[in-house]
Amino acid sequence: MSTQVREIAEAAKAASRRLATSRSDAKGAALESIAARLEADAEAILAANAADVAGAEALVARGELAAALLARLRLDAKKLAGMIEGVRSVARLDDPGGRVLTRTLLDDGLVLEKVSCPLGVLAVVFEARPDAVTQISSLAIRSGNAVILKGGREAARSTAALVAAIRAGLALAALPEDAVQSIPDRESVDALLALDDLVDLVIPRGSNALVKSIRERTRIPVLGHAEGVCHVYVDAAADPAMALSIVLDSKLTYPAACNAVETVLVHRATVSGVMLPLLGTLLEKGVEVRGCAETCAAAHGLPVDLATEEDWRTEYGAPVVSVKVVESLDEAIAWVNRYGSSHTEVIVTGDRLAAERFLAEVDAAGVYHNASTRFADGLRYGLGAEVGIATGKLHARGPVGLEGLVTYRWLLRGHGHVSAAYGPEGRAFRHEKLPIR
Amino acid sequence: MSTQVREIAEAAKAASRRLATSRSDAKGAALESIAARLEADAEAILAANAADVAGAEALVARGELAAALLARLRLDAKKLAGMIEGVRSVARLDDPGGRVLTRTLLDDGLVLEKVSCPLGVLAVVFEARPDAVTQISSLAIRSGNAVILKGGREAARSTAALVAAIRAGLALAALPEDAVQSIPDRESVDALLALDDLVDLVIPRGSNALVKSIRERTRIPVLGHAEGVCHVYVDAAADPAMALSIVLDSKLTYPAACNAVETVLVHRATVSGVMLPLLGTLLEKGVEVRGCAETCAAAHGLPVDLATEEDWRTEYGAPVVSVKVVESLDEAIAWVNRYGSSHTEVIVTGDRLAAERFLAEVDAAGVYHNASTRFADGLRYGLGAEVGIATGKLHARGPVGLEGLVTYRWLLRGHGHVSAAYGPEGRAFRHEKLPIR
Repeated sequence: MSTQVREIAEAAKAASRRLATSRSDAKGAALESIAARLEADAEAILAANAADVAGAEALVARGELAAALLARLRLDAKKLAGMIEGVRSVARLDDPGGRVLTRTLLDDGLVLEKVSCPLGVLAVVFEARPDAVTQISSLAIRSGNAVILKGGREAARSTAALVAAIRAGLALAALPEDAVQSIPDRESVDALLALDDLVDLVIPRGSNALVKSIRERTRIPVLGHAEGVCHVYVDAAADPAMALSIVLDSKLTYPAACNAVETVLVHRATVSGVMLPLLGTLLEKGVEVRGCAETCAAAHGLPVDLATEEDWRTEYGAPVVSVKVVESLDEAIAWVNRYGSSHTEVIVTGDRLAAERFLAEVDAAGVYHNASTRFADGLRYGLGAEVGIATGKLHARGPVGLEGLVTYRWLLRGHGHVSAAYGPEGRAFRHEKLPIR
Repeated sequence: MSTQVREIAEAAKAASRRLATSRSDAKGAALESIAARLEADAEAILAANAADVAGAEALVARGELAAALLARLRLDAKKLAGMIEGVRSVARLDDPGGRVLTRTLLDDGLVLEKVSCPLGVLAVVFEARPDAVTQISSLAIRSGNAVILKGGREAARSTAALVAAIRAGLALAALPEDAVQSIPDRESVDALLALDDLVDLVIPRGSNALVKSIRERTRIPVLGHAEGVCHVYVDAAADPAMALSIVLDSKLTYPAACNAVETVLVHRATVSGVMLPLLGTLLEKGVEVRGCAETCAAAHGLPVDLATEEDWRTEYGAPVVSVKVVESLDEAIAWVNRYGSSHTEVIVTGDRLAAERFLAEVDAAGVYHNASTRFADGLRYGLGAEVGIATGKLHARGPVGLEGLVTYRWLLRGHGHVSAAYGPEGRAFRHEKLPIR
């Protein structure tokens, strides 16, 4: 098993080197070729998916699988067409690699460039979502990276059919088909996570447990986040209707999403105007509410349970929200920095200074003023698509699209320059920034 | 011990939050204040250093310490003045935080900014080099980060005196003195490496063994490199005199440096013109040479040992070099990608196409044409100074100065915007790039 996975990773590394030096238009043309091939193979892809869905339905009927998975797994002609349009939209995005970021004249004839370049080989572990296959593959190819995919086993036939079409499209465009490969089982993932000499970045997309487990098992850098404990802080100067609208959107449009709100902080001054309509509407929409003592007191008999310390640290991933009364903007900022998971944090206020303090002092990948947490998304940010959302501080944060899949290197062009010529008794460096061509 | 280290790290985190929202000119003024305080405390610092040197000399005399350490440890008035001038030069550099990197209009009244920000708390483990204390502290303060220092124990008194002056300078400038702290012993390092909730980045500066050991012991991201196996490839179209000059500079100016060359690759076509003068000069300068069979054959009786497989992977850190004959540019690129440590790689050639292929296809943090490997240095790159050289691919590569100590976050300013308003049946995003103010 591990020998086979090493061969896959070595083929991916070789493919990544070819992709890294391919022209931008060649990669764009390959994505067009892939889109065409996906269209041509639509019938086979939908048949493979139907077989996956039948298998999953049997598991759901036996209670061995959550029914929610079926909706994400199931493809139809319209959804497949949307996925193919997604590939074409990534084809139209600019190549983030090969960009000259800085250009410095060190001395006569000695020019230093900082140039963006692909990361190399990505390993992506995700759930039974066929749309993730085309989205991740197209972002990888556009950015010049090879990718090794491990999808949920319930989607095995769909993944295989999609990967076959993508590889055929790559081959037609004369790019290495091993730029996109898939591995079949969990044991292969373990073998892959050991290959820190070949794999440059691991991207887990799935449950907190999956992300944490992968972080524990590898020394390869992991891009992503384990938790999305996001807050909406309703400030003293908040417009009550806007606050209600933003909280509802942040929780209800997709309660299981990582960018859904988990805790609402309410400034004491707005409790009288905001709390009752907020609690009433949340409960009416079927959201379970847990509150601090002051929230419970302000609930006037509405069914609000007392929140525990555990609640403030919990990503519910469900129609549940905790509500806490705070004394001040300072307390809100301190609370968010203590209990938040550095994902996305919101202040609702009409006070511009309060907003700017919150935006300056909250330490998170995204900090918003008067907008829903749910905007934390690659498509909404205009990144084309996303491979995931990162809450780490190194390299890429927030929704990670093409730009997060490249790094840079330094290119130096001289005419025989040697370091010994420089120093107190020698030449001085010029260090002039040149215009970027 | 671990309680005490946690308190230090918590104080550092609190200081980092204050630094992160301090104005750029306040941080610059603090560095001026630190420089003045270092000048005022010069006598005490030099006395502390003299005590360290006396202690180290006793260890060297007993054979318990390498004599080379003494030169790095010893301060005098001139060296201290240079360190203080270094602090002032960092004060003059632009603040890399708070820069708007992109600015996008998502919709009417909804503006998204990508803004650079400090990492937070840095932990730096380094050797008995007093100059590292002022260099690292000034880079950390200029970039808005707090730093916890652990210097070599032979320099304990020097480090304490320097840190005391730096903290006094911070306090005088009304910035939190806990932005710079030091911890005393190895046990504290272990406690610190466990604090992944408080420390954002670990920077080890020292031996390969130190770097590897730290990587093994922490889940905090580690910036740096374990090895510097750098190559100079002398192409078929190389100018022999230039090749000789670059190889000698790359090895001899500082054989123990990570950016010194370890292996010279010689194209078969240049063996007759380059090999004998190269080997002769290296040996004459006291460099031990190990070669492939073809190199040994071309040595015509010069004392060149046969290199082993191990040699090609070794960073000698000493006046030793290995020499290998290659058939072609392709073989050179494949060799460098296989045996190199992604640090700094050089081609010497008059053939522009060969140079551009090498620059495009070699996967390393720095790739040079006709220049010495020794240019891989923050001061030489014009980065002001460096905290280390990174060979990883995420976030920062090559010499890491101020820019490598910041990341970015996304700021979104709206007027009550909610995500549910967007979609096939709703509003479309505008995604217009705005000019950066």
